[in-house]
Amino acid sequence: MLSRVRSAVAHLVRSPPAGAGSGSGAPAKTVDPRASFSRPTFLQLSPGGLRRANDHAGRAVQSPPDTGRHLPWSTGYAEVINAGKSRHNEDQACCEVVYVEGRRSVTGAPKELSRGQSLFFFLTYLSLFLHQGLCFYYWGLFDGHAGGGAAEMASRLLHRHIREQLKDLVEILQDPSPPPLCLSSTPGASGSSDPSHLVGPQSCWSSQKEVTHESLVVGAIENAFQLMDEQMARERRGHQVEGGCCALVVIYLLGKVYVANAGDSRAIIVRNGEIIPMSREFTPETERQRLQLLGFLKPELLGGEFTHLEFPRRIQPKELGQRMLYRDQNMTGWAYKKIELEDLRFPLVCGEGKKARVMATIGVTRGLGDHNLKVCSSTLPIKPFLSCFPEVQVYDLTQYEHCPDDVLVLGTDGLWDVTSDREVAATVDRVLSAYEPNDSSRYKALAQALVLGARGAPRYRGWRLPNNKLGSGDDISVFVIPLEGQAVT
Amino acid sequence: MLSRVRSAVAHLVRSPPAGAGSGSGAPAKTVDPRASFSRPTFLQLSPGGLRRANDHAGRAVQSPPDTGRHLPWSTGYAEVINAGKSRHNEDQACCEVVYVEGRRSVTGAPKELSRGQSLFFFLTYLSLFLHQGLCFYYWGLFDGHAGGGAAEMASRLLHRHIREQLKDLVEILQDPSPPPLCLSSTPGASGSSDPSHLVGPQSCWSSQKEVTHESLVVGAIENAFQLMDEQMARERRGHQVEGGCCALVVIYLLGKVYVANAGDSRAIIVRNGEIIPMSREFTPETERQRLQLLGFLKPELLGGEFTHLEFPRRIQPKELGQRMLYRDQNMTGWAYKKIELEDLRFPLVCGEGKKARVMATIGVTRGLGDHNLKVCSSTLPIKPFLSCFPEVQVYDLTQYEHCPDDVLVLGTDGLWDVTSDREVAATVDRVLSAYEPNDSSRYKALAQALVLGARGAPRYRGWRLPNNKLGSGDDISVFVIPLEGQAVT
Repeated sequence: MLSRVRSAVAHLVRSPPAGAGSGSGAPAKTVDPRASFSRPTFLQLSPGGLRRANDHAGRAVQSPPDTGRHLPWSTGYAEVINAGKSRHNEDQACCEVVYVEGRRSVTGAPKELSRGQSLFFFLTYLSLFLHQGLCFYYWGLFDGHAGGGAAEMASRLLHRHIREQLKDLVEILQDPSPPPLCLSSTPGASGSSDPSHLVGPQSCWSSQKEVTHESLVVGAIENAFQLMDEQMARERRGHQVEGGCCALVVIYLLGKVYVANAGDSRAIIVRNGEIIPMSREFTPETERQRLQLLGFLKPELLGGEFTHLEFPRRIQPKELGQRMLYRDQNMTGWAYKKIELEDLRFPLVCGEGKKARVMATIGVTRGLGDHNLKVCSSTLPIKPFLSCFPEVQVYDLTQYEHCPDDVLVLGTDGLWDVTSDREVAATVDRVLSAYEPNDSSRYKALAQALVLGARGAPRYRGWRLPNNKLGSGDDISVFVIPLEGQAVT
Repeated sequence: MLSRVRSAVAHLVRSPPAGAGSGSGAPAKTVDPRASFSRPTFLQLSPGGLRRANDHAGRAVQSPPDTGRHLPWSTGYAEVINAGKSRHNEDQACCEVVYVEGRRSVTGAPKELSRGQSLFFFLTYLSLFLHQGLCFYYWGLFDGHAGGGAAEMASRLLHRHIREQLKDLVEILQDPSPPPLCLSSTPGASGSSDPSHLVGPQSCWSSQKEVTHESLVVGAIENAFQLMDEQMARERRGHQVEGGCCALVVIYLLGKVYVANAGDSRAIIVRNGEIIPMSREFTPETERQRLQLLGFLKPELLGGEFTHLEFPRRIQPKELGQRMLYRDQNMTGWAYKKIELEDLRFPLVCGEGKKARVMATIGVTRGLGDHNLKVCSSTLPIKPFLSCFPEVQVYDLTQYEHCPDDVLVLGTDGLWDVTSDREVAATVDRVLSAYEPNDSSRYKALAQALVLGARGAPRYRGWRLPNNKLGSGDDISVFVIPLEGQAVT
């Protein structure tokens, strides 16, 4: 995330005195603010590789080594990190297989399998059979801004929060009957209703809402994001959690793929050449109406400095009394209004495309962290306008026959800023057709090709793409997850 | 709208003393609270026809007469009104051709044309040429609840509000260059910016937002809905505007069809057998998160009687301390929470499907009116949770080659409650293929067939559909608008 938060605000992330306790009860260790430049452990970077990653001039594409080790599902991964330019612009990634027991659990690093996955599946399900637990596969991309702390912390801990949330559901998810609405400690407590104290007519309660297993997993993921964000808020009192991060997370559990997104990373499925979007971006443009509604209902959050109205350009004081186009929180169209004094305030949402900003500062509206983020030259906090909740889309892997070329592609905005969905699908076709279907290194090659295609090559005046446009100068991280033969219900 | 507002609340719509002035400045006359049962003028109902419309037992299907008169575009219309059962459940409809001049305008009732529309078009465009004005076609369905006043008033006045909003845009919309962002009274006022008093970084303003002509029309429609709603609030002080109404409105202007919807009426295009949804329904279920967010941010609106949390069923006091499924305003999934005292309050949003309610009272969340609507046995107003803003979808008529069987179908929920999109498309095919393509009565026949198909026939224990399910006991109103040969840019 090169330009998502204006560099001017980096220094505004206040550093509280170190040394206070974490006060956590959280499931994992606290972040170390002095942690040096770090990359995902599954990359298994040598000291030389770590140096290359940290070298902005070289912009090396890094992937896990070819020494017979694979990520689960033969997942492909590649990245280019421009940390040499700024240590505050860091993508982080995570790939885990996580076991969940009712109230005990074990987190495992990705298993090392030289061939196939049958042994792995056997061991996994033997473990589940013995422990009556659950297992989920997990991939996460975390695109940091205004500091690397939040992305680093999320990459280490978010899946643990998800595991904690799923612990209560282990038995429920394995039972095909509908989930209990109330977990009762006294038998028969979920019987007929007692309407004596109700304030209104009751007929809308004549039936219970149907709650699916799937919606419990979605709720668990949503709560895990919130708890991760709250942990960042707590930990900043002790150790500085720098900045914030977008989070794009994929979970495979009991036959279904859950794609949870908070920010402007993106996921698509390419299936038989067809493109299926699996996420939406959350930016000042896509969330304009939510932001404006909040500013309208809670004007104190605007600090007398901003107006919740949107204008197509900055109003000049001399235009007072003239009529300007505007949009209010309820509107998708534009209309003219007479310019009043309040309209000369800076708009809560301004700019468009990659330059769109909330409070002239931040270009993403969902994510984790950012608890210290303030408006430049002001003490006005921006966090109230940011949501830590992801949107979760579900894909039922058992509903389709997949072929070896069907993949789920995750990428940070470094990829998508310069690559269209169609270009990704074309690269999927081009690269995978050059490998045997059973060659498990093909997905890594595809991830590398996607990162290379977005980075470009050094040419006259910077890194250029084959069409001579500038390549992405941002961090670029890509997971390629093959979908064939993975569904186990 | 048979069951949208619980009958228990009808008496809660307080009647202020009659006789006070309208205090309007509004573009048209005020509503008469003593108005007797009324139907759209374009139906040209005889006293006998009006009696038939008012007879619930007979449930006659009514359409404009066959005496050589047509609605614009040979629009088909049919309705069944169950006003004999309750005078508070009344659909209303409107169909107009509206002329807009820069600051003068004329509203015309639909022209009477015995054959074709060439004379009409000639006169229309001669008028436009002479006056340099605009002309729009307008169709509206207004499904009332808890009183017929709002629907009746909206059917008479909403298009006039739209005309007023468009008056400022007459010249702008006829000029192909981008709309001016600022209507300046002093030449050159829209020059370079003066950033001296800006509070934050300015680079997000490096470009102006592009504003399209289309978005100006959308903004005009949105503002017209708001002004209509405000007029209802004003007029209730003088004359009682009873209840509220859903509003589904179609405007054809300069080659584009604008479908504006606030409520649970629906519009679809059937084009070459393909179904294109042109509206979304706004109900407690589809707008749950907006409603919950409002209750969360403004808890005073809940009056200590409601909780903004959603539960899948009513919680019993004896379940206090146990763990119940819930959804918060940020969640789409469900999670368990320990039941606290506040959770025993009635949920802001409860029930599902047609039984979903806001504050146990109303089943639609957008529309006009309802300014007096209170929670049953309480003084708590519901209006703050209702939005008068429509969602506007745009369809460019010039972008497609249409055939005589391509139609836009508008229906109140009386149609859609018992008829699927596919069934409507099948009826379109069945009815229109039985008529010559140039027989302009075919669209009326189609509207009648759709209403008949939703009403059913009297059989054992009520009105039944051919599949023996109960027909719709609600008001049913349908417009069928043919799309071929209408686009004039």
